[in-house]
Amino acid sequence: MSGLFITFEGPEGAGKTTVLQAAAQELMKNGHSVLTTREPGGIDISEQIREVILNPKNTGMDPKTEALLYAAARRQHLIEKVKPALDEGKIVLCDRFIDSSLAYQGYARGLGIDEVLSINQFAIGGMMPNATIYFAIDPEEGIKRIHANRAREKNRLDLEQINFHKLVQEGYQEVISRFPERFRTVDASQTIDHVIKRVNEMIEEALKKIQL
Amino acid sequence: MSGLFITFEGPEGAGKTTVLQAAAQELMKNGHSVLTTREPGGIDISEQIREVILNPKNTGMDPKTEALLYAAARRQHLIEKVKPALDEGKIVLCDRFIDSSLAYQGYARGLGIDEVLSINQFAIGGMMPNATIYFAIDPEEGIKRIHANRAREKNRLDLEQINFHKLVQEGYQEVISRFPERFRTVDASQTIDHVIKRVNEMIEEALKKIQL
Repeated sequence: MSGLFITFEGPEGAGKTTVLQAAAQELMKNGHSVLTTREPGGIDISEQIREVILNPKNTGMDPKTEALLYAAARRQHLIEKVKPALDEGKIVLCDRFIDSSLAYQGYARGLGIDEVLSINQFAIGGMMPNATIYFAIDPEEGIKRIHANRAREKNRLDLEQINFHKLVQEGYQEVISRFPERFRTVDASQTIDHVIKRVNEMIEEALKKIQL
Repeated sequence: MSGLFITFEGPEGAGKTTVLQAAAQELMKNGHSVLTTREPGGIDISEQIREVILNPKNTGMDPKTEALLYAAARRQHLIEKVKPALDEGKIVLCDRFIDSSLAYQGYARGLGIDEVLSINQFAIGGMMPNATIYFAIDPEEGIKRIHANRAREKNRLDLEQINFHKLVQEGYQEVISRFPERFRTVDASQTIDHVIKRVNEMIEEALKKIQL
């Protein structure tokens, strides 16, 4: 892998997706080749797997079945989309990746961070992100933002309770403590312009690091 | 779990499926409640996952994606079909289970037994079979039987080379060496009546063991 693989993580309503697009614009303006993506990312096999996960008939799906399916969709998206872009030397900005599974399924849903990590290590096979930017926001503030944003369709996770959002953030803190070298935390309660500026700086640092 | 969980393993052409049905008949004749099954076993979510695996359009499926999907289908089949039967005290005879993944994908396909074991341990969550009967047969003899059996549709694995069958058997030997307590080996080159008799004895032994 000769490119740079950066993932964006955090709870719902933290502004990840908006900032990711702005960061990609900035990088392209500076002459970089950039791929922005988010699983399943249009990869046919991953989309088929996601359909099984989201099929409303599948109410009896066991949480471990779901975790294995997410890991399978992750693997195929990584092999078909992320890896080829990295091999071409591109900067890949991915909206959510392994740490979302660890925080949501491993911690908040109670499957265990170590157990969910083991199946994801199998899935990603050493292709860990070079850097991961964590969007830190107070859970109540995040939920307020989601509800204020009328243009956006509310999804199942948006509608979960505040307590679940708190659990997710505890989960992320636990994950960060295990990978302190990989994580950078941005204060997502700041203005969007401020957050974009900080994230651009973080990506520049990560670029310098791999160029050394 | 109050029942007895027995899996049947071995290469193609070893007679597993025929013997499993005969063993189930014998157990029922003796008054036992028996479930015979084979993944995906009519479980809707597992069948949907199997459709993704077997979809002829999905030629680009990565071997690790496939292994995760098999593990996901296994989990759901286990939770929805095997576990309820065991909870009711039934004897469950399952045609192929975790060891097939270890021998075929872990060893013969080269993903690594330890790695495939780790995702399957996640999937089965401690619900290991009480006993596993391994059908030992010379690879060339197994392939001869498959080709002699005109009534049976040849599948992709049947058509693989002898060398692959040899690899699968090496894989099983490696797996057996890791779980010597769980495995019983039957000489599947004997007459079918002889094999059935031996397997019935093995199941009786396993029954006695859990009744102690």
